[in-house]
Amino acid sequence: MVYHTHAHTPERMNPMKISTFASPQAIVEEGLTIKQRFVIVIDTLRATSVITAALSRGAKGVIPVMEIEEAVRLYQNLDNERTLLCGEREGNPIPGFHLGNSAMEYTPAAVAGKTLIMTTTNGTRAIHAAGQARALALGCLLNAAAVAAGARRSGLDVTILCAGTRGRFTLEDILTAGAIVERLGAPDAVMDDLSMLSHDLYLRHYGDLKGALRQCTHASYLAEAGYGQDIDYCMQADLLNAVPYYEKGLVMLER
Amino acid sequence: MVYHTHAHTPERMNPMKISTFASPQAIVEEGLTIKQRFVIVIDTLRATSVITAALSRGAKGVIPVMEIEEAVRLYQNLDNERTLLCGEREGNPIPGFHLGNSAMEYTPAAVAGKTLIMTTTNGTRAIHAAGQARALALGCLLNAAAVAAGARRSGLDVTILCAGTRGRFTLEDILTAGAIVERLGAPDAVMDDLSMLSHDLYLRHYGDLKGALRQCTHASYLAEAGYGQDIDYCMQADLLNAVPYYEKGLVMLER
Repeated sequence: MVYHTHAHTPERMNPMKISTFASPQAIVEEGLTIKQRFVIVIDTLRATSVITAALSRGAKGVIPVMEIEEAVRLYQNLDNERTLLCGEREGNPIPGFHLGNSAMEYTPAAVAGKTLIMTTTNGTRAIHAAGQARALALGCLLNAAAVAAGARRSGLDVTILCAGTRGRFTLEDILTAGAIVERLGAPDAVMDDLSMLSHDLYLRHYGDLKGALRQCTHASYLAEAGYGQDIDYCMQADLLNAVPYYEKGLVMLER
Repeated sequence: MVYHTHAHTPERMNPMKISTFASPQAIVEEGLTIKQRFVIVIDTLRATSVITAALSRGAKGVIPVMEIEEAVRLYQNLDNERTLLCGEREGNPIPGFHLGNSAMEYTPAAVAGKTLIMTTTNGTRAIHAAGQARALALGCLLNAAAVAAGARRSGLDVTILCAGTRGRFTLEDILTAGAIVERLGAPDAVMDDLSMLSHDLYLRHYGDLKGALRQCTHASYLAEAGYGQDIDYCMQADLLNAVPYYEKGLVMLER
């Protein structure tokens, strides 16, 4: 793919356009538009954070699938020495799987050189909904600056697609969208309403992103379920200089 | 319908739950939930504002339809003395129709005693998406207090459904959602993320709701198209004490 091998940002004839959607269901009518776009899928708690962390710790690639059965079937057909079954349901590990959905588990020792078959609900659905994109990157707070730089280098207009939770708007994804909008060079862009609102929200809370989530539905659920350390990790902006790209069923780092 | 004939708010055993969705596409998976809910559909610029204004100025009822052809076919089958063809496309009047989508046109002289066949894109789609609701009311800033009072009297949990624009989040609808959340008695409710954000946004901007829309996509489009006076009208909170309810294809005031 050409778009992420440019050494510098190409000159744009027009300001970058940025659109943001709160859930994959919302983009069903954007098919034609996203074919021309650099799409960034966000599932900050936790799919896109975990995938970004795993790849930057040496995993070779990630195969995102919707269903547990699909993951198991695929695993049985692949070289078991080099693949791991990963994912979650309702935030918890899946019995019999090697790894859950906590970034803490994805150590270099566990994942280096491995291909991860990963099933998560909202993140995978969002990736599939944007399958037609000209370029499809995975974004989170951890790689906000890196993914924004990748989008700028592409010279394309940008669509940010939040995974949400079963069609619902989730605050951590919108804060992440705002962080990315900021790093795309917000004041010079032509933004839709949710891009503007996300950016505005991020600017109000960037000093304490974790604090902003305190009342937030999914983060509260995870904190109560004992994943507080995960939230601490995932809410750190620009920690990782890694951009996972999805193409033809596989997520890999840009090269 | 029993829910809006109560003289006072019934005692609730549990705090009211409030969910907010940014577009009708987002609630496709909420079918079972909304059957138990008081759903408030919002299309502030301008379908729900125009319908609320028209009914409070004496229109007998509104039949919302998706397509122009459907509206014309229906009109040809009804008593033409008592019906009017109304609606818009891209914000502008439809050639051959009696009324467009500006509240200014819906004077008592024009609409009193009439049934309005109205075709608007996003508003009608949102109403149809919520057709399974236990109770389905139309909300806007003009009737924010009235529709919130209706919802409280129902004793039901509340789902707020913004019409948006082709799946996109629109700021004027979210500000209206926030105004209604405030009037539902926000601090005592159990809210999802978008309900909280809407409320927060409303509290920041309620002193100048029109100003908050200045950069907003659809409002800018309407202002440029010469509908500034409409925006001024629609952005007034609590002007009308009228709640349109949808039931079996027809929108009428509560009685």
